[in-house]
Amino acid sequence: MSQVTATDLYEVTMALSYVREDMRAPATFGLSVRDLPPGRGFLVAAGLEPALDHLSRFRVGGGDLQHFAEALRCPVADLEPLHGLSFDGQVRAVPEGRIVFAGEPLLEVTAPLPQAQLVETYLLSLVCHQTTVASKAARCVLAAAGRPLVDFSLRRAHGPEAGMQAARVCALVGFAGTSNLAAANRYGIPASGTMAHSYVEAFGSEEQAFRAFARTRPGPVTFLVDTYDTDRGVATAARVLKDLGPGPGCGIRLDSGDLFALARRARTALDEAGLRDVQVIASGGLDEYGVDALVRAGAPIDVYAVGTKVGTAADAPYLDAAYELVEYAGQPVMRLSSAKVTAPGRKQVHRGPGLRDVIGLANEEPPEGTEALLRTVMRGGLRTEPPDTLDAARARFEADLAALPEEARRIDRPVAPVPVVTTRLSALTTVVRHRTEARTRAGR
Amino acid sequence: MSQVTATDLYEVTMALSYVREDMRAPATFGLSVRDLPPGRGFLVAAGLEPALDHLSRFRVGGGDLQHFAEALRCPVADLEPLHGLSFDGQVRAVPEGRIVFAGEPLLEVTAPLPQAQLVETYLLSLVCHQTTVASKAARCVLAAAGRPLVDFSLRRAHGPEAGMQAARVCALVGFAGTSNLAAANRYGIPASGTMAHSYVEAFGSEEQAFRAFARTRPGPVTFLVDTYDTDRGVATAARVLKDLGPGPGCGIRLDSGDLFALARRARTALDEAGLRDVQVIASGGLDEYGVDALVRAGAPIDVYAVGTKVGTAADAPYLDAAYELVEYAGQPVMRLSSAKVTAPGRKQVHRGPGLRDVIGLANEEPPEGTEALLRTVMRGGLRTEPPDTLDAARARFEADLAALPEEARRIDRPVAPVPVVTTRLSALTTVVRHRTEARTRAGR
Repeated sequence: MSQVTATDLYEVTMALSYVREDMRAPATFGLSVRDLPPGRGFLVAAGLEPALDHLSRFRVGGGDLQHFAEALRCPVADLEPLHGLSFDGQVRAVPEGRIVFAGEPLLEVTAPLPQAQLVETYLLSLVCHQTTVASKAARCVLAAAGRPLVDFSLRRAHGPEAGMQAARVCALVGFAGTSNLAAANRYGIPASGTMAHSYVEAFGSEEQAFRAFARTRPGPVTFLVDTYDTDRGVATAARVLKDLGPGPGCGIRLDSGDLFALARRARTALDEAGLRDVQVIASGGLDEYGVDALVRAGAPIDVYAVGTKVGTAADAPYLDAAYELVEYAGQPVMRLSSAKVTAPGRKQVHRGPGLRDVIGLANEEPPEGTEALLRTVMRGGLRTEPPDTLDAARARFEADLAALPEEARRIDRPVAPVPVVTTRLSALTTVVRHRTEARTRAGR
Repeated sequence: MSQVTATDLYEVTMALSYVREDMRAPATFGLSVRDLPPGRGFLVAAGLEPALDHLSRFRVGGGDLQHFAEALRCPVADLEPLHGLSFDGQVRAVPEGRIVFAGEPLLEVTAPLPQAQLVETYLLSLVCHQTTVASKAARCVLAAAGRPLVDFSLRRAHGPEAGMQAARVCALVGFAGTSNLAAANRYGIPASGTMAHSYVEAFGSEEQAFRAFARTRPGPVTFLVDTYDTDRGVATAARVLKDLGPGPGCGIRLDSGDLFALARRARTALDEAGLRDVQVIASGGLDEYGVDALVRAGAPIDVYAVGTKVGTAADAPYLDAAYELVEYAGQPVMRLSSAKVTAPGRKQVHRGPGLRDVIGLANEEPPEGTEALLRTVMRGGLRTEPPDTLDAARARFEADLAALPEEARRIDRPVAPVPVVTTRLSALTTVVRHRTEARTRAGR
């Protein structure tokens, strides 16, 4: 099934209606997050690269028309006006990895109305999900305070493809590796992995399991020590590692129980065995809260593996994001519904030192000493630049993170900066609101 | 990239080690949920059909070996023992749609150890996600108390593929439709959709938008009335609907604000306009809690559309599920790690009236008047039956739901039934635990 059909039915109805009514003037839609979820002091823009891939390939084919017609229970001929429709518009967007806040457009799509409408659902699905998980993973990076993190989320992500994207955005914010083999291959992320409890159970003996594992996996090994009794597991691992003559990168993994106490005892046991270079890796239900508590307590843990709660962004698994029409045929437009008022017009975000952001109209003069966040990344349906790399995105994230105010970086009850809105954008909002209200009252 | 590589790296290392150590005896792994999340009185088994599809197709090809080798940073030749490995084992499983509880295996895989291990990650990813969302959606069905529900989750699901699965499991538990066009096509679910606020904004006039919509969409139409002022929107919709001479299935949709008050006023206005058959559809941040509150308050809402919170299972977005080795080479095995003790041996769940479940060993005599939940669905790597249908799964769900105790059905603080464990399974657990502890103490 083509990606074109992975959309809400109403996008098709509306696009068809626009074509029939000859409403093909340029429309601009802005995708932004209205409010940050509790527990988030910032968001990390993610999902743009796959979104641009989608737009590059977007074309309504004959098979798609067939599917549209089936879903709408109408003759295929009715859908013919959409045949061959592709995306040849412009996209201005915040590059992946940049830190963003409430009300800031992550991207703005400008294209003939039917096109700009038809791509809504898929873009939202990519950008919302990936920004959600990237923002959770970024908090783990803060909590780990320089210690390496590894993504273990594939098995608990919302399906295998969600796991692929989780691995990608974890790497984007600086994770050192992923357990996800396909993601490692697709995105060039170091693959990482140890053994499961089942491996130890199949041998029935930790010592036999560890020795067999080392036979299969030349080079650095990590032994999982908590299948039975963890302290004994550590002692067994130490004995086998001494026999192997461990090189750098060997480790033991703790996956359950009181990770702080177990890590302390494991570290002591390893040190006493002369295995000072053997790392302690912790996993098991961790996210930024668990990592932060362990790091603050001084747990001797060298590497943190996070999975379930990060891959699902468990405490805030969605964003209050919308793809809103802000301009049509040169006229700024807005919605007035309670609590969901949107600002009209094409926008730009100007970033000053300390991530003090100003949201203004796209054609406003930038305030002095600021940098524009939205860049033109697609024109005439074509990328303006070669595809971005994860390394470049990570560098942007790291630079923004370094400038993020302390209260937004906090793990516990962070406070997000609130962007300032320019006088011109405020004034336009007021004008468009009054004009829209007057027209509505007049029953037009 | 093939589905075979969408796995955790360690599955490959372990499978390779098993082959090299000639550990190819039959192993049984059980996939079960250790504890239900708060806010869940039951789970709905889902994900089995795609899991069986995956197993049917599973085969390690040359390209996969290449990817394995890259991730493991070893020569491809080292991976050669895995070349051509496919799944030719047995699967016993709870069919989709059945209600299940903590500790009950959703499926048991029995196959030569390398195969049974290698499929772990993908199976967990499918079954955990789909069971998670199905269980949330099932609670919406309870809350709606007979009123139709529609799935609107695609745009906020964890990527488009997660949205496909969300639409499928919503239909499985009895949703009347989905906005997801691709899912409607792929799974034969009625597609449903209205218009977006952007549609109204593009016209700049609700009346013009509604009339244009009706021109494009012959047959029943639903008008979105909350783009500007909702009461005015209702009045405009009523006027246009009267002109159209509305047939059955026409409606108005409320997507923001105080849905109870707005629905009451909308109903009154529609009735006064003689539009008693025009439906009121509510959407906007709803899940079982929101639906339950509106239904209990007597809101005159005919159809509920749920999206974000259901598609992401926002209050419980993951399950504490595991795929545990329970038997290898005829010997029951178990894990002893704190708080994650698993019961050994191949199991069966016997269901009595009122969903009183007994978890026992697979070869135990069933208690009188009970039905076995796990069925053999795959043998020798082949399905034992034709693929299941959503209709059949829905019928199973409805039958189980009808028998579910009241306290498990509650929306607010439900209490889940706790299955009983047979004496023989308890006894085996004790024996295996003592044996394993003794062996561990002996340092073997």
